[in-house]
Amino acid sequence: MGAGKILFSSDIDDPVAWGAAVRALRPDLEVVDWRAAAEPEAFEFALLWKPPPGGLGPYRNLKAIQSLGAGINQLDLSTLPPGLPLARLIDPHLTETMVDYAVTAVYRHFRGFDRFERQGRERRWAHEEPPTKADFPVGVMGLGVLGGAVAQRIRALGFPVTGWSRSRHPIDGIEVFAGREELPAFLASARGFVCVLALTEHTAGILNRETMGAMRPGSCIINMGRGGHLVEGDLAALVRAGHIAGATLDVLSQEPVPADHPFYDLPEILVTPHVAGGIAPRSAAPIVIENFDRAMAGTPLLNLVDPARGY
Amino acid sequence: MGAGKILFSSDIDDPVAWGAAVRALRPDLEVVDWRAAAEPEAFEFALLWKPPPGGLGPYRNLKAIQSLGAGINQLDLSTLPPGLPLARLIDPHLTETMVDYAVTAVYRHFRGFDRFERQGRERRWAHEEPPTKADFPVGVMGLGVLGGAVAQRIRALGFPVTGWSRSRHPIDGIEVFAGREELPAFLASARGFVCVLALTEHTAGILNRETMGAMRPGSCIINMGRGGHLVEGDLAALVRAGHIAGATLDVLSQEPVPADHPFYDLPEILVTPHVAGGIAPRSAAPIVIENFDRAMAGTPLLNLVDPARGY
Repeated sequence: MGAGKILFSSDIDDPVAWGAAVRALRPDLEVVDWRAAAEPEAFEFALLWKPPPGGLGPYRNLKAIQSLGAGINQLDLSTLPPGLPLARLIDPHLTETMVDYAVTAVYRHFRGFDRFERQGRERRWAHEEPPTKADFPVGVMGLGVLGGAVAQRIRALGFPVTGWSRSRHPIDGIEVFAGREELPAFLASARGFVCVLALTEHTAGILNRETMGAMRPGSCIINMGRGGHLVEGDLAALVRAGHIAGATLDVLSQEPVPADHPFYDLPEILVTPHVAGGIAPRSAAPIVIENFDRAMAGTPLLNLVDPARGY
Repeated sequence: MGAGKILFSSDIDDPVAWGAAVRALRPDLEVVDWRAAAEPEAFEFALLWKPPPGGLGPYRNLKAIQSLGAGINQLDLSTLPPGLPLARLIDPHLTETMVDYAVTAVYRHFRGFDRFERQGRERRWAHEEPPTKADFPVGVMGLGVLGGAVAQRIRALGFPVTGWSRSRHPIDGIEVFAGREELPAFLASARGFVCVLALTEHTAGILNRETMGAMRPGSCIINMGRGGHLVEGDLAALVRAGHIAGATLDVLSQEPVPADHPFYDLPEILVTPHVAGGIAPRSAAPIVIENFDRAMAGTPLLNLVDPARGY
């Protein structure tokens, strides 16, 4: 647990805030932005959203990489030094903000606020009876740390909850489905679908014409995974056809989302500007420090990425 | 607990559904719509939203009135037989649907979905960091059965919660304020305000230029009490001035809300069509039956209205 330098590289995160959060807990650790890194050989640990523009080649003494994201899709794994341990970053603030986003979006569709927004724009007022949660089962796609937390909170709020993941993740009180074979049963099990999957070759495009078409008419899609999970043209077609009633999408294939994106023509689809989860330096710093220490000691990192699995 | 007939009168509730729900539990009890009530003297108990058009005069043997609403503002008390016990109707389904509505609206403002709806219409996408609940204290106005349930659920979800009522209602984990003297401190205590008050001469117009002006800039108003709690022109002015950031209103001074209502010109204000709380015959029937039995036995009704207090 000696003194050390942490290489920092990101075009969206603040090196000063990260440096302060790490130093507050471990004054012997220095976070150095790559632009100020004079001696690449001095770094044994990297904290990065993306590698520096020139790549990590000069940083030949790195022992591990800590992603600044819960996912690693922002990294082109083929450009990283082979064999270097890589960890995802999942902190309590990220989990809580992701769960909050899911709660907001699920209630929005459950209580018809998406429709009421549209009715208000049309100056229409039509009384209806409130729904009951028994009629709005929620299906959570992805049952890892984040998906499991989402499923449990939604369940605690009184919704029937089902879940799907590639390999089976049993969760108390939740009917779980696993693998491609059980996907049809899962798609028939809910009316609100929350995607919190990791993006891999197995999950890319998993929300498509076939799977969304197999959902019950009137189903809603909430995507807080990655833009690549959703085939955007298929969703637009199913919304236009009236099969999918609404969607709340925090991630899209292209961000910033261009002003001429077809979703902006569909009032049933709400696009939010990638706000679901936030990583806060103060709550994440202990995890980064723990992984720094593990890298120095040569023990396995927290949230270590399995290259074969892709997350 | 003998056999009996229950007089039914409502222009919005279904006498057949109520009759079936009551009969399922007590086959000896018959719910009779006033239009089919041949002998007014045969009724000792009335279940009504509003009295029959001719009033309750002919029903001279009534011992009690059970409102079909959680409130009694739809009833003109001066037209009811004097001295007759009157009960509000609060069933588990009503409480749960009201709490759900409050959760939906609080999260909508907390997570900025009201702004994102507007940005989407303007085809704008601007990333921002997710907020934390510590920065979004919620103030609940009205701490009776419904307000207390709302305050406790919002608190359980991790928001700081304060509460205000005319007389002091202590609730675990919630800072409560009471009476006019403590209203200014309450108004400064939160950023999201949920009104679940009963409408009385003391609470009519309580959301006005002065009180909403005393809230922190950027505050949000959620009204699920009665339309009469809010001075609508004052809210419109404070929204136009940028002091109040948003509102979600389930009750308005006039319902159905006319298409030319000024709120439809303000994208910061969402009007929902009086959907917050629903009374379901099946879940409410046991309470109606209990009050029927109490009326026959001459014991105090559940949720008995205090005429002096007005609720």
